[in-house]
Amino acid sequence: MSARQLPDQIGWDGLPERVTICEVGPRDGLQNESGVVDLAVKLEFLDRLADAGHTLIEATSFVHPAWVPQLADAQELLAKLDRRPGVRYPVLVPNATGLDRALAAGVEQIAIFGSATETFARKNLNRSRSESVAMFAPVVSRARAEGLAVRAYLSMCFGDPWEGRVPLRQVADAAGELMALGCTELSVGDTIGVATPGQVRALLAMLSGDGIDLDQVAVHFHDTYGQALANTLAALQCGVHIVDASAGGLGGCPYAESATGNLATEDLLWQLDGLGVQTGVDLDKLVSTSVWMAERLGRPSPSRVVQALG
Amino acid sequence: MSARQLPDQIGWDGLPERVTICEVGPRDGLQNESGVVDLAVKLEFLDRLADAGHTLIEATSFVHPAWVPQLADAQELLAKLDRRPGVRYPVLVPNATGLDRALAAGVEQIAIFGSATETFARKNLNRSRSESVAMFAPVVSRARAEGLAVRAYLSMCFGDPWEGRVPLRQVADAAGELMALGCTELSVGDTIGVATPGQVRALLAMLSGDGIDLDQVAVHFHDTYGQALANTLAALQCGVHIVDASAGGLGGCPYAESATGNLATEDLLWQLDGLGVQTGVDLDKLVSTSVWMAERLGRPSPSRVVQALG
Repeated sequence: MSARQLPDQIGWDGLPERVTICEVGPRDGLQNESGVVDLAVKLEFLDRLADAGHTLIEATSFVHPAWVPQLADAQELLAKLDRRPGVRYPVLVPNATGLDRALAAGVEQIAIFGSATETFARKNLNRSRSESVAMFAPVVSRARAEGLAVRAYLSMCFGDPWEGRVPLRQVADAAGELMALGCTELSVGDTIGVATPGQVRALLAMLSGDGIDLDQVAVHFHDTYGQALANTLAALQCGVHIVDASAGGLGGCPYAESATGNLATEDLLWQLDGLGVQTGVDLDKLVSTSVWMAERLGRPSPSRVVQALG
Repeated sequence: MSARQLPDQIGWDGLPERVTICEVGPRDGLQNESGVVDLAVKLEFLDRLADAGHTLIEATSFVHPAWVPQLADAQELLAKLDRRPGVRYPVLVPNATGLDRALAAGVEQIAIFGSATETFARKNLNRSRSESVAMFAPVVSRARAEGLAVRAYLSMCFGDPWEGRVPLRQVADAAGELMALGCTELSVGDTIGVATPGQVRALLAMLSGDGIDLDQVAVHFHDTYGQALANTLAALQCGVHIVDASAGGLGGCPYAESATGNLATEDLLWQLDGLGVQTGVDLDKLVSTSVWMAERLGRPSPSRVVQALG
């Protein structure tokens, strides 16, 4: 690893002092890999992410293995995972069966996933938007009764490959429906990476105006058009302090052709470190992890920071 | 080219209504290519950039050909260039000899290049900072007397590969010296791409406090660590309305190992288009140009937007 430049840390009035990064590499990242990654590699990946200081790591998914064969080992992974004190490991849960498996595995937090558009709901969930909300309602209700936290992903918030632009009002209504189920956190996703900062700010203002507490809102940007970090800055300026990112920029979405590349955690960290925003995550350890994972996957990380330092 | 998503155009209070992009691909971009590009390709590149709507295109350089062999054809290029009405074609000029050649070629605008650090001044200009300012003084003076506009580049404003962090005061002092020579524009460069938004804002505030009109200040970001667009947003929020970028992300700096990749004009345009900021530049034409140039150079563009749309 080459010597790292250490520019001034200079903050920005009104930004959060601390940001929680939701590291989505092990689930959102790996599920898009065509070659199945060994369980041992996944476990080492999770260990390395915790070693780097992550406290919120999306571990795996209980979506049916027929849909996401990469994560068919969810049960075994959770049984073997060395769960660190102070680290949360949410898992994706699509339905009652998934919740049963998650509860049996002793998870503390689940994530459900809705869509802001009809077309993507049908492509990703095989049902209409309202049917998907109805499907999630008893899952969220039971999970909350069992004391679990529930994150709700909302996809296609800023554009949809089939429907094009997505009206802000439609997105905010879909968000409100998910939060009304009792979810504890909402992750607003730019699944195809088209958003620009004005859109981000307008949507967050609408959510806040609808009574959704921005303390409960995370942003989930993709870097398809290079906009992820500028959008993150816009979200931070609105008071958001939970940001999703994927180590090394792993991932995308297998059902949306133009979706490539989650925001790389390293690129996010460079910005936050420079702004003096605390995260608790060590950049050098994370870069080493992504270099190691890139070797396992057989191709370089798309993260600019990993390319520069790795 | 795949269908382009058209998300909402949603602005941001206080951003400039219009941004002038200084397209640096033909000079700053190409000078870092190891293989010499044919004059005919350069001329077509310049034509395509003007066709796309650019009005400020850095055309070439009168630095001695021993230093930048790629641009040894500057004189012939300017003689053959179809200079469009309403388009300015600044050229880089290092000294009195360069200015003579530029004047003979009938240019309307030149650019000089200083450094915020001693080490880079010695590496890039083979003299101390103060010696380089003394060298440029008569060049700027004569150029201004001849009615030319003079852009001053200032490199290493946010970090230096040899010196590490660069104090803001040192950068602002170096900027003041160049502007005191009579330059009409200052381009603040993050040559190695390490800056984060708080630094950008702090430096711009200091320049403004020193009496430099931000209407005369351009920002020149590199995307080495993925920060260029977030830094651009920060600069726009400060009122800057001239942004340097390179079609397809061509370029870097041959004398600074860790400097890779200028901000790609396409990635910048995606942000500005989304924010409703006018530029007059057509994204699709620019993407086509960068795809065409990538074929000539034999490798893909690093621009995220070109990769997504090209």
